[in-house]
Amino acid sequence: MKFTINQLAELLNGEVVGNGETTVNNIGPLDKAGPATISFLHNPKYESQLYTTKAAAVIVNRALQLKEPIQPALITVDDPYSSLTFLLKQYQKLTKTEKIGVEEPAFLGQGSMVGESGYRGAFSYVGSNAKIGSHVKIYPHVYIGDNVTIGDNTIVYAGAKIYSNSVLGKGCVIHAGAVLGSDGFGFAPQPDGSYEAIPQVGNVVLGDAVSIGANTTIDCGTLESTIINTGAKLDNLIQIAHNVEIGANTAIAAQAGISGSTKIGKNCVIAGQAGIIGHLDIGNKVTVGAQAGIGKSIKSEGAILLGSPAFDIRNYKRSYAVFKNLPNMASRINDLEKKVLNLTPSEK
Amino acid sequence: MKFTINQLAELLNGEVVGNGETTVNNIGPLDKAGPATISFLHNPKYESQLYTTKAAAVIVNRALQLKEPIQPALITVDDPYSSLTFLLKQYQKLTKTEKIGVEEPAFLGQGSMVGESGYRGAFSYVGSNAKIGSHVKIYPHVYIGDNVTIGDNTIVYAGAKIYSNSVLGKGCVIHAGAVLGSDGFGFAPQPDGSYEAIPQVGNVVLGDAVSIGANTTIDCGTLESTIINTGAKLDNLIQIAHNVEIGANTAIAAQAGISGSTKIGKNCVIAGQAGIIGHLDIGNKVTVGAQAGIGKSIKSEGAILLGSPAFDIRNYKRSYAVFKNLPNMASRINDLEKKVLNLTPSEK
Amino acid sequence: MKFTINQLAELLNGEVVGNGETTVNNIGPLDKAGPATISFLHNPKYESQLYTTKAAAVIVNRALQLKEPIQPALITVDDPYSSLTFLLKQYQKLTKTEKIGVEEPAFLGQGSMVGESGYRGAFSYVGSNAKIGSHVKIYPHVYIGDNVTIGDNTIVYAGAKIYSNSVLGKGCVIHAGAVLGSDGFGFAPQPDGSYEAIPQVGNVVLGDAVSIGANTTIDCGTLESTIINTGAKLDNLIQIAHNVEIGANTAIAAQAGISGSTKIGKNCVIAGQAGIIGHLDIGNKVTVGAQAGIGKSIKSEGAILLGSPAFDIRNYKRSYAVFKNLPNMASRINDLEKKVLNLTPSEK
Repeated sequence: MKFTINQLAELLNGEVVGNGETTVNNIGPLDKAGPATISFLHNPKYESQLYTTKAAAVIVNRALQLKEPIQPALITVDDPYSSLTFLLKQYQKLTKTEKIGVEEPAFLGQGSMVGESGYRGAFSYVGSNAKIGSHVKIYPHVYIGDNVTIGDNTIVYAGAKIYSNSVLGKGCVIHAGAVLGSDGFGFAPQPDGSYEAIPQVGNVVLGDAVSIGANTTIDCGTLESTIINTGAKLDNLIQIAHNVEIGANTAIAAQAGISGSTKIGKNCVIAGQAGIIGHLDIGNKVTVGAQAGIGKSIKSEGAILLGSPAFDIRNYKRSYAVFKNLPNMASRINDLEKKVLNLTPSEK
Repeated sequence: MKFTINQLAELLNGEVVGNGETTVNNIGPLDKAGPATISFLHNPKYESQLYTTKAAAVIVNRALQLKEPIQPALITVDDPYSSLTFLLKQYQKLTKTEKIGVEEPAFLGQGSMVGESGYRGAFSYVGSNAKIGSHVKIYPHVYIGDNVTIGDNTIVYAGAKIYSNSVLGKGCVIHAGAVLGSDGFGFAPQPDGSYEAIPQVGNVVLGDAVSIGANTTIDCGTLESTIINTGAKLDNLIQIAHNVEIGANTAIAAQAGISGSTKIGKNCVIAGQAGIIGHLDIGNKVTVGAQAGIGKSIKSEGAILLGSPAFDIRNYKRSYAVFKNLPNMASRINDLEKKVLNLTPSEK
Repeated sequence: MKFTINQLAELLNGEVVGNGETTVNNIGPLDKAGPATISFLHNPKYESQLYTTKAAAVIVNRALQLKEPIQPALITVDDPYSSLTFLLKQYQKLTKTEKIGVEEPAFLGQGSMVGESGYRGAFSYVGSNAKIGSHVKIYPHVYIGDNVTIGDNTIVYAGAKIYSNSVLGKGCVIHAGAVLGSDGFGFAPQPDGSYEAIPQVGNVVLGDAVSIGANTTIDCGTLESTIINTGAKLDNLIQIAHNVEIGANTAIAAQAGISGSTKIGKNCVIAGQAGIIGHLDIGNKVTVGAQAGIGKSIKSEGAILLGSPAFDIRNYKRSYAVFKNLPNMASRINDLEKKVLNLTPSEK
């Protein structure tokens, strides 16, 4: 399929600068684009590539001020990232084969109901008394336990495992190998030093439009539910412990971990490899930096934290700047001590 | 099913304060309890909820001194956590369907023996010459390689993968997606900068009552065994490298990592996201704090460590308190230098 | 099977010191060796075990100077680690059953081609139009999506999931539970605080002889490919985000994470639990220490970094040494301030 730049600009409500009649047939990044590629500039970090790219056209922000002459045509828009998203969705519709129907063998337990127009891949397993909505895609090797509920249009990729009694909303995406509903890590220490497992009888509940990354694990609640609210986006290899609640539209990057019974507010951003200990309350719009360790509840909306244990990011950076210089500071203190000793009248 | 508070108190060897004839039919946390709920107070952090809960009854420690008047009846016991565990076990027996029998298709290799009264889910795979004990539950999509031995009453949840020659004790719980016996990360550097894989011909051995969390990975030994001793409890997404040995009743929280050939003693606690480098010896009853990085062997029993590299937790906290104040300290040193310069007689 | 020490020495181009006619039938570590075991000494840390081992023979470096009398015979070689690797390969050939053929049921989609002499385990899934080379081993519960290409002699262990359009080279090893090609974590923030998923239409490309550890996750590129070049070795539970490129022969230890669009050079070593933020360039032969956090591009070849954010390892260690002593430094500054105040003439 080919499109002219003018056609694409019209789709994107953008304006063309340069030759709008060139045709393109694929989308690619600036540094790998060829003469039939449409590309985009979103991150200013890559602006230099705009002046060297071989792309036929580049989607840019209307406000962009060119610093050098350029080869490609431009499509100027309000938000290049949204325009890219829009184009990619169209591209995906045209190029991706829609999975539908049932591949055999697939296991469906007694009393389970599956909605219309869905997909169940070979070797997928749905236990008893599950309720699967319509247009749900269940890829090969997916395990869905008894009494699970899954809303319409949710996709569960290959080998994800959803324990019994879990509840998933509509339009969720669960990536390969994710585990929902494993037992929380709850053990009662015994007098002899051994541990007795505390039965975990709760479940996992996801709102709508929740995304769970590959090999992420979410434990079931002890008595109640571990809850991931609508619109939350979790990356790969994240640990969510029992009884946690994640607020709506909170995004969590890869390898972060949230300990038991912690509640996280709405619209937070938790960066990669960050950790949050248990039984805390984190407010709305809080940002936790990469590798940070949160040891206290954070009530102030909009706080940004770094360090382990974490505190205000600006203060952390100031402290860390001095930390890098500590050997110099130590020798300055040595010098001061000698000078002060010399200045001090000797006592007799 | 309904029980009176008096009936439950008798089961728990507890005493009732308040109306023991009220009936309850479920167990829940204080802040979500309804009028037919029995709840519990274990963590003093949540005591305030005792004065606002709608629960019919709350299990509390005998020693608890009430600070305000309360609504619910109390069941006073020696250890509320153990009482809760006991109740939940009864609750689970009454409510959880026991899996038993074989769902087809399930694969069983030549020469393998499976004990009585177990479960093998659809699409489960057991290789050749495996020895599976009685009452073992093997969930769907579990992979068990050749020559694996599994003791009685062990549960292997959906999609766990157990490589050939692994040995699992009795009463273990392996959660979904866990991997036991993958090759250790052993590569011999070659003169041209490439790596040659060192064959890993050892295996993984678990004692009895070991718990392995979801998506945790345990590599096989290079020549010998990677060993997790009886009663050890491992959370989700943990990495255990080749030739490691974990002592009995040691608990490891999510996303911690133990590098190759390190030996960890008994009754240790390793907190979340901690890392321990290879070839170390860690003594008994050592506690490693969250995100700590252990770079040296720890011989003193009962040591508690924090930081990366880690040292004694009290000293770490003292240093970190000063770290937070470093910019202030830097400006005080600047001031001192000026003052001392002013005090110093100028040399000619 | 038994071999004399002389026979093994000849295989290894080594020289025998002691009785070469003793026979051995297994390979083991020094501290667990019995009288029919051949062992090795590679890491000087374990030299003391040489003087107490019960092994019949030990492979050591030619340059080793004995400090005490020893029991076992020695086989002296240039590189004990390479000799061990060589022996283990022979041992593995003799002892490991070669998997070959197809176990039923196995799923093979339309238009897919599978080369000769391979293995496809029961419940393995290969989608449509895949191209699988010869001698490829696909273990049970492996998922291979549509249009995937896999080179000759590659092994994909149980339950690994390879999304559509991935390309794997020759001689790769993919361990259990690894995920290749899951969607990158790309979401466009919307004015109402929600996120819209950016379609990820790229793929994952592995060179030859790449090793991917258990439960490691590699996201597909947004528009292009996420690339792991020839000879790179990735340990378990690693996160590789979209559009990342890992250079040839770079080794990455467990639980490290590389954020989106970062390029890592050749022959780098990234230690365990390290994190690298997105959109960076890391040069060749760079070493990143355990738990380090890389926040800036690293251009100098051979740099070694530690800390979060990371800087030169020697400087980090110097700063950290002072950090451990900060409370003492704080009290010295207090003392200095008092002394300087006493020395300062009071102003009137």
